[in-house]
Amino acid sequence: MMKSVAVLLAGCGHLDGSEIQESVSTLLALSKYGVDYECFSVNTEQYDVIDHLKKSPSHETRNLLTEAARIARGEIKDISQLDANDFEALIIPGGFGVAKNLFTYAYQGTNGKILESVEEVVLNFCKMDKYIGAICISPMLVAMALRNEATDLKVTPGFAQAAAEDMKKMGAVPVLLKSDEICVDEINKVISAPAFMNPDASLYDVYTGIEKLVKYIAERM
Amino acid sequence: MMKSVAVLLAGCGHLDGSEIQESVSTLLALSKYGVDYECFSVNTEQYDVIDHLKKSPSHETRNLLTEAARIARGEIKDISQLDANDFEALIIPGGFGVAKNLFTYAYQGTNGKILESVEEVVLNFCKMDKYIGAICISPMLVAMALRNEATDLKVTPGFAQAAAEDMKKMGAVPVLLKSDEICVDEINKVISAPAFMNPDASLYDVYTGIEKLVKYIAERM
Repeated sequence: MMKSVAVLLAGCGHLDGSEIQESVSTLLALSKYGVDYECFSVNTEQYDVIDHLKKSPSHETRNLLTEAARIARGEIKDISQLDANDFEALIIPGGFGVAKNLFTYAYQGTNGKILESVEEVVLNFCKMDKYIGAICISPMLVAMALRNEATDLKVTPGFAQAAAEDMKKMGAVPVLLKSDEICVDEINKVISAPAFMNPDASLYDVYTGIEKLVKYIAERM
Repeated sequence: MMKSVAVLLAGCGHLDGSEIQESVSTLLALSKYGVDYECFSVNTEQYDVIDHLKKSPSHETRNLLTEAARIARGEIKDISQLDANDFEALIIPGGFGVAKNLFTYAYQGTNGKILESVEEVVLNFCKMDKYIGAICISPMLVAMALRNEATDLKVTPGFAQAAAEDMKKMGAVPVLLKSDEICVDEINKVISAPAFMNPDASLYDVYTGIEKLVKYIAERM
């Protein structure tokens, strides 16, 4: 059976959806290493829609799954169809769409909640001892989901100090890194990359970190 | 002065906008080769909006420039601000958003018209003897724009036979290629890559072709 990775997206665009450049970098690296992948998202209305030119709310309604389909060229399924048994690993790119929709960290901080379907998926991969790759703000989601499962979970917030403090509040161990580096927690099988948590990172540095994350997982799954 | 490339986008999503994976591949390759870039699009309502999950019209209205800003993380300008004097080269990724908006090829074929602002930009780069990189369906746009300027313009339609015939009708010479290859017309300084004109191409092949295109231009500008 071909090795396969599930990629979890949340809309399309860094201010209200999945960060597009990180998401494509993830799919590109998977394609480079010959890993089959399937994309998933949540079939629900987005928390908000942001005009990415003006960087202000646009008062539209859009659907997370429908918009994420733009990144995936239509090849995407509802998260209800994501069975961890079918995949060797899970990768979650970043973006405010993750922090506003997959969990509520963007407006509730460490008191936020994770969407039930998302939490279940993360816990399932963890319990099956399968790798989870988390990019940008997604390591925060993974830290929250595994708060009661993992001990001393090492994750990276890039160099974002406030995010590092929030990770500590959830019992995780933040590792400050540049965007072309990755954080490896081999015990918990969580690999993370800062990507645009360092907002001045070049796209090539972001891709380099994500490629390292994908390569690490692809070589071990 | 730092070498710089203008990237022309048209929305966000392969069925009604710029092909996202091709667009990010272009920006990534430019970043890899240390080339500074600026993104541009047209401030106008899209021809249509397609639900990328259902692959059917969604009866919304969206703006080309505003949606393209999602790919560019907000760093994008109106094409009216694109002065060919400021750049060493122009690159146009593909997607139906190009063929429906930047010119009307998607519904009028070789009888289609190019948006005046876009035609002017392409002609300016050509007249200044600067490189034009054209990806996916964009070689068709360049062939149309340079119909009366270039002789025996070599461009690639991938392996799309109908597109090859249309290129011939406009006096161009189609070169059938795989997605990891590029078509070089050094006389007219037009470099093209098939990308998803070959719809079964892997993302890594698409990126490889685009990286070759960017590298070729970056080393010569």
